[in-house]
Amino acid sequence: MSVTSARGFRAAGVTAGLKANGRPDVAVVVNDGPLQAASGVFTSNRFAAAPVEWSRQVLLDGEVHAVALNSGGANACTGSAGFLDTHVTAEHVAAALTTAGRETGAGEVAVCSTGLIGERLPMAHLLSGVDAAVLALSAEGGSDAAVAIMTTDTVPKTTTIHADGFIVGGMAKGAGMLAPGLATMLVVLTTDAVVDAADCQSALRAATRVTFDRIDSDGCMSTNDTVLLLASGASGVAAGRDAFTTAVTDACADLARQLIGDAEGASKEIRIDVRAALDDDEAVDVARAVSRSNLLKCALHGEDPNWGRVLSAVGTTRAHFDPSAVDVAINGVWICRGGGVGEDRHLVDMSGRDIVITIDLGAGSAVASLWTNDLTADYVHENSAYST
Amino acid sequence: MSVTSARGFRAAGVTAGLKANGRPDVAVVVNDGPLQAASGVFTSNRFAAAPVEWSRQVLLDGEVHAVALNSGGANACTGSAGFLDTHVTAEHVAAALTTAGRETGAGEVAVCSTGLIGERLPMAHLLSGVDAAVLALSAEGGSDAAVAIMTTDTVPKTTTIHADGFIVGGMAKGAGMLAPGLATMLVVLTTDAVVDAADCQSALRAATRVTFDRIDSDGCMSTNDTVLLLASGASGVAAGRDAFTTAVTDACADLARQLIGDAEGASKEIRIDVRAALDDDEAVDVARAVSRSNLLKCALHGEDPNWGRVLSAVGTTRAHFDPSAVDVAINGVWICRGGGVGEDRHLVDMSGRDIVITIDLGAGSAVASLWTNDLTADYVHENSAYST
Repeated sequence: MSVTSARGFRAAGVTAGLKANGRPDVAVVVNDGPLQAASGVFTSNRFAAAPVEWSRQVLLDGEVHAVALNSGGANACTGSAGFLDTHVTAEHVAAALTTAGRETGAGEVAVCSTGLIGERLPMAHLLSGVDAAVLALSAEGGSDAAVAIMTTDTVPKTTTIHADGFIVGGMAKGAGMLAPGLATMLVVLTTDAVVDAADCQSALRAATRVTFDRIDSDGCMSTNDTVLLLASGASGVAAGRDAFTTAVTDACADLARQLIGDAEGASKEIRIDVRAALDDDEAVDVARAVSRSNLLKCALHGEDPNWGRVLSAVGTTRAHFDPSAVDVAINGVWICRGGGVGEDRHLVDMSGRDIVITIDLGAGSAVASLWTNDLTADYVHENSAYST
Repeated sequence: MSVTSARGFRAAGVTAGLKANGRPDVAVVVNDGPLQAASGVFTSNRFAAAPVEWSRQVLLDGEVHAVALNSGGANACTGSAGFLDTHVTAEHVAAALTTAGRETGAGEVAVCSTGLIGERLPMAHLLSGVDAAVLALSAEGGSDAAVAIMTTDTVPKTTTIHADGFIVGGMAKGAGMLAPGLATMLVVLTTDAVVDAADCQSALRAATRVTFDRIDSDGCMSTNDTVLLLASGASGVAAGRDAFTTAVTDACADLARQLIGDAEGASKEIRIDVRAALDDDEAVDVARAVSRSNLLKCALHGEDPNWGRVLSAVGTTRAHFDPSAVDVAINGVWICRGGGVGEDRHLVDMSGRDIVITIDLGAGSAVASLWTNDLTADYVHENSAYST
């Protein structure tokens, strides 16, 4: 049930006219407390969008009262005018909330945008949408909010994790440009656990490192990636650090999996398991190199267990391994042993949607998993017709 | 006229039955001297194929008498048995040439293979092919040799550069997996200039750095990339270092352009010009990041001048630049100025096959150009049906 699963939150999603197709495009999420602890993780792209620059500032004091999100425009590469638009949006949200009895200031309002790069937002529509969303805020509004942030997503993505005495809920959007550092996406997580901003930050960093940082649909990095975690404390339950990190990680993993499951034009969901690496970084490097091989991704689309393309990608990395000691399995069949031919490739069943590639580097004991998709003609069609 | 344009060389291409489609698949190139200077540049992929490992050894003394090439099988990831196959091939070539009156040893025979990874070569066919090719060697055989090394290439690729008193000729194959470090390909260059192995090496390094290293069709790196330069000295003309490097670079540039022009499934040939970079390395880094954006490559296929996707890719690099000072032009129209909207995107004409993207980083005075292709449904179809 999304960002309103945890107590202390209200949300809404409305249609403001930003999208040409007339679908919902503005969402607001409000933390009614008693706490307003928050943390965020943002894109490392150096062309960070105006809302990213704004929200980074808002998060500095570890306190967020509300988040305004819009689809239908990224407000990226829009210069100082675009930054002012974000500022005005935050001011407008704060004023509308204050009028509605939930006093707050613009400095406690994070903003997220997604859509076309390089175009100004239609501010009149957006601000009207904010007004409508604030009026529509409810403790059941999480689903509407999740719909309002969709772009090329085919389904809304929400999660609810029930932990010991507290809840972590959340919503995500993202269906292309899923990428390194952070998969391209907007994610808002909420919890009613009693935690402070430092707790939020450490849990969110730990969670994103093994979830959103490990999905890489097409190798492209967005200008707008944002993951926010808001804590209301409304459960009255002080969450232990480990239990909290686990719940946040489970929520992120659930949403990350949904992002890969809905990647643009994909017909396969591929998990790359690297094992026996010298260390974690090398395990991730190898998995990422494999996940970015267009040739391999085409082969997997064609249900061809092409281990040669796996090795070609592994061979471009600087990870420690002896080429004659590398094994590769696809869906459990070790078709490559010792850097050469292994079991009969015809034993591999790739007819299902899920594919698991296991790479044993024979160099150490570190492991890492990364998720990606196949490369399809549908991906090309979708991305040659749609302006991001 | 390919590898036999320069005096002192004979070549042949024959059908040995390695390819299922019955097309020519074995080529031999012989340097009849009087010199036998040679140099080579090879893939940096750590799963280097057996013929790459072999030829690296052959090149150590800077002398090559002959090159045997086959399509229809890469002999990569085939272990010690595969390496022995390459050794046997070189021995066979040397014996056949010696029998035919051109005395040589296996240690002076380089070998190149291309085709499926992970399968042993059908040696009986290959060795029969070598015999037939040696018998067919002629000073007019360059074109046949160029045809025999094709895989998914739709046209043979050859070049002839007439310099002051000497010639540089060559052939290339490669139509997919064009990549960094070296584009995936086999290239044999020949010259009748009077040069030694050191001259060959310095000219070839300089030439590949700005040609084959700057084409990046799909970001994938082959296990078999090989570029060889053989010098016969048959012109009697001692080439100056600069003139020789220029001629070799021109030959490489011509072949590199032909490789991009014939990339699998491509409908656009894209040149990425980075200017005003702090140094050469940063210019190349930025160009390569842009050339690897699947999202951008789809947009270019759709003739969408999507500068936002250019900036997204630039923003993933660590090159020096101020995001608010970056300009981008597509086909000469500066649609992005100062990291934001520039001229009207509708002014951009992308209807032709050639596209030029110019990125001005405003950080220095270094420049670099890199060539790539668009990403198309045809690329996906070709590579999901064909096992490399």
